[in-house]
Amino acid sequence: MGMVEVAKRARTASLRLANIKCEDKDRAILTIAEEIDRERSRIIEVNNKDVEDSLRKGVAPPLIKRLRLDNSKIDEMVRGLRSLARLEDPVGRTTLCMEMDEGLELYKVTCPIGVIGAIFEARPDALVQISSLCLKSGNAVILKGGVEASRTNISLTDLIRDVLRRLGKIPEDSVQLVETREDVAELLKMDDYIDLLIPRGSTNLVKYIKENSKIPVLGHTEGICHEYVDEYADLEMAVNICYDAKVQYPAVCNAMETLLVHKNIAERFLPVMAEKYRQANVELRGDPKTRKILPEIKEATDEDWRAEYLDLILSIKVVDSIEEAIEHINLYGSHHTDGIITMSEENARRFLMEVDSAVVIHNASTRFSDGYRFGLGAEVGISTGKIHARGPVGLEGLVIYKYIVKGSGQVVSKYTGENAKPFTHRRLSKVWPV
Amino acid sequence: MGMVEVAKRARTASLRLANIKCEDKDRAILTIAEEIDRERSRIIEVNNKDVEDSLRKGVAPPLIKRLRLDNSKIDEMVRGLRSLARLEDPVGRTTLCMEMDEGLELYKVTCPIGVIGAIFEARPDALVQISSLCLKSGNAVILKGGVEASRTNISLTDLIRDVLRRLGKIPEDSVQLVETREDVAELLKMDDYIDLLIPRGSTNLVKYIKENSKIPVLGHTEGICHEYVDEYADLEMAVNICYDAKVQYPAVCNAMETLLVHKNIAERFLPVMAEKYRQANVELRGDPKTRKILPEIKEATDEDWRAEYLDLILSIKVVDSIEEAIEHINLYGSHHTDGIITMSEENARRFLMEVDSAVVIHNASTRFSDGYRFGLGAEVGISTGKIHARGPVGLEGLVIYKYIVKGSGQVVSKYTGENAKPFTHRRLSKVWPV
Repeated sequence: MGMVEVAKRARTASLRLANIKCEDKDRAILTIAEEIDRERSRIIEVNNKDVEDSLRKGVAPPLIKRLRLDNSKIDEMVRGLRSLARLEDPVGRTTLCMEMDEGLELYKVTCPIGVIGAIFEARPDALVQISSLCLKSGNAVILKGGVEASRTNISLTDLIRDVLRRLGKIPEDSVQLVETREDVAELLKMDDYIDLLIPRGSTNLVKYIKENSKIPVLGHTEGICHEYVDEYADLEMAVNICYDAKVQYPAVCNAMETLLVHKNIAERFLPVMAEKYRQANVELRGDPKTRKILPEIKEATDEDWRAEYLDLILSIKVVDSIEEAIEHINLYGSHHTDGIITMSEENARRFLMEVDSAVVIHNASTRFSDGYRFGLGAEVGISTGKIHARGPVGLEGLVIYKYIVKGSGQVVSKYTGENAKPFTHRRLSKVWPV
Repeated sequence: MGMVEVAKRARTASLRLANIKCEDKDRAILTIAEEIDRERSRIIEVNNKDVEDSLRKGVAPPLIKRLRLDNSKIDEMVRGLRSLARLEDPVGRTTLCMEMDEGLELYKVTCPIGVIGAIFEARPDALVQISSLCLKSGNAVILKGGVEASRTNISLTDLIRDVLRRLGKIPEDSVQLVETREDVAELLKMDDYIDLLIPRGSTNLVKYIKENSKIPVLGHTEGICHEYVDEYADLEMAVNICYDAKVQYPAVCNAMETLLVHKNIAERFLPVMAEKYRQANVELRGDPKTRKILPEIKEATDEDWRAEYLDLILSIKVVDSIEEAIEHINLYGSHHTDGIITMSEENARRFLMEVDSAVVIHNASTRFSDGYRFGLGAEVGISTGKIHARGPVGLEGLVIYKYIVKGSGQVVSKYTGENAKPFTHRRLSKVWPV
């Protein structure tokens, strides 16, 4: 089947999906959970073949780890599906009701976006998560997984489509899988059919997608996160937070990559901090002012300020003022997550307002920037875009709204001209459907 | 000044704009209103030169009408600015507060998008409206107006920038004007600096912009709007609404272009309707079933179903079912505004849910689709996109949000692993700043 046909089927399915009851969506999600639970040994077997292939091809161990499904990952999938089924329907919520005139009412009601293109690498559990989030939000999804997980992806997609077909309420073309690299190139051109692209994978994958498609992209390329230790920071707190932000899990997008320190606290803070980092084998790179205090460390270049190390490496800069810190972050950062450590409420407020990032944090680790930790439920990804959805994106980022007007025969000509009937424009607390 | 410099200045201004008090924004807007009021004769004089030039060049009368400023248009501008100043600040609203743990709180707070590129044709009053909406929402704006209005645009931009400079709170580079066609081509490439493009003008302008930029575009290319007269329609109501939707003001995007009629009502409805249209000189074009009832009218082709006439022309199709009507609209429409006329609540509900348009209307004219009539305040435009903002877009469409975390020294390592501290994840009713 060609990509245009896939895209058309997705579009047709999405139009039906827009009018499906939440209980039917939840039943489908719960049945998928049951089937995955029941079929776990078969799924793991299929996945083993993918893993063996990748091992033969000498694929790197971290990728093998992401690719491999075991009982605990399957448990997690099943748990994720069940908790998703318990969440409130994101579709059909009335967010505004306005009386335009007696018998003429406006409702702003959430609805699905339409067709989502989801492109991800290696992790087959991402397929289940994204498909189920799309089902719950009433969107059709076209999935493109990693080649390494090919057999697993086919098997999981078949399972999901079988459930949809069997239950009969949701079109099975709501979830479709495409497989080749050529398919991706085609997918990116389908701006007539696909409303939103969600890439999950490496910086390069996301960059490639953003550069090669007119379809809006929800995601982030890089996480160049900062902590700024203000002159009014509590020293012990600063050391703890900066240690956690760098060391607790350095391979992820919300880990700190650059540490900014106010000059008035640098001489007290940096030696203590450096000693802790040394014990954790963190490589430090500093600007000239930092190296006056820590002469043993390497020099940081302009490239370091733009680097997402995703590793135990940290660049450090001493700044003259909070303004300089904010400017540095807005210039070199990736608008993902940035923190300030200070006891000055005034400085905190200023930083939180003026740093142009999706998540800004006062006196806590950047590592908290995560949909699950925020309590927002399952996460589609973290967006550094400034349109539609920003920061950790859950179900809410997969819906938009439509305006529904309920009239009783009104015509505009009555409301214009010299003897125009005035609008009442009163907010009502009614919800749709009335 | 090159476009990169313009864009950089806008970006710098936008970062300062994000932290400006509403009272300072409102004072600027009110002062601009005062100045325009005071300087009206000078503005009209400058505008007269633009109009004379255009008349000499043989510019079409409707464009001259849009270009010309007179006292009543200036009054409207001033009124618009004053009512904008009275609106609530769209920035800094807390839309969610979540306790993650004791002393660790998450706030979702609205904030400006950043830098807006606004491209419009002919109407110089659009410049004042867009600039002031951007100021109120804390966004920097780069304006590109029509060449015909060149002198007027420069004069209005200077006036606005003078006010900002004089009041001293808002950077004057928050509002910048660029002038040449080459500038537009450059502008469209500035995806590192510009967050959103808002085109206001012809279908061709909007299409050109969408096709030539990676920056998200808020707007609509076409308004191919439908009314569907269901078999359970009240005949008199249907005639009134369909007359209004086509005749009241045919040159606008929310006027009806195609009328769909259920076969069971067609023979009673169409002759009455056609007679009313005949009196208003509406040219009718019909499918074969329509022409069986109205043999005197022209044939409608596939092109008619895709046409935005913006004129006293209407295509008519008789459909076998509500499904066929919905399918026709989703296939040929432009996802702008579509209506159903019916006394059946069940059919209405189905239509409103399944028609994939920004505005769907039951028993009222499509012409109501408008931010002012909806009671949403000043309108940036009507969006047919399905990301970020849809339908009539006002101030709310010019903001996004950021997540603010207020901690007291928390680190993630405490919340992971075997003895992980659990999150509390309780919704609070607090607002930021605390």
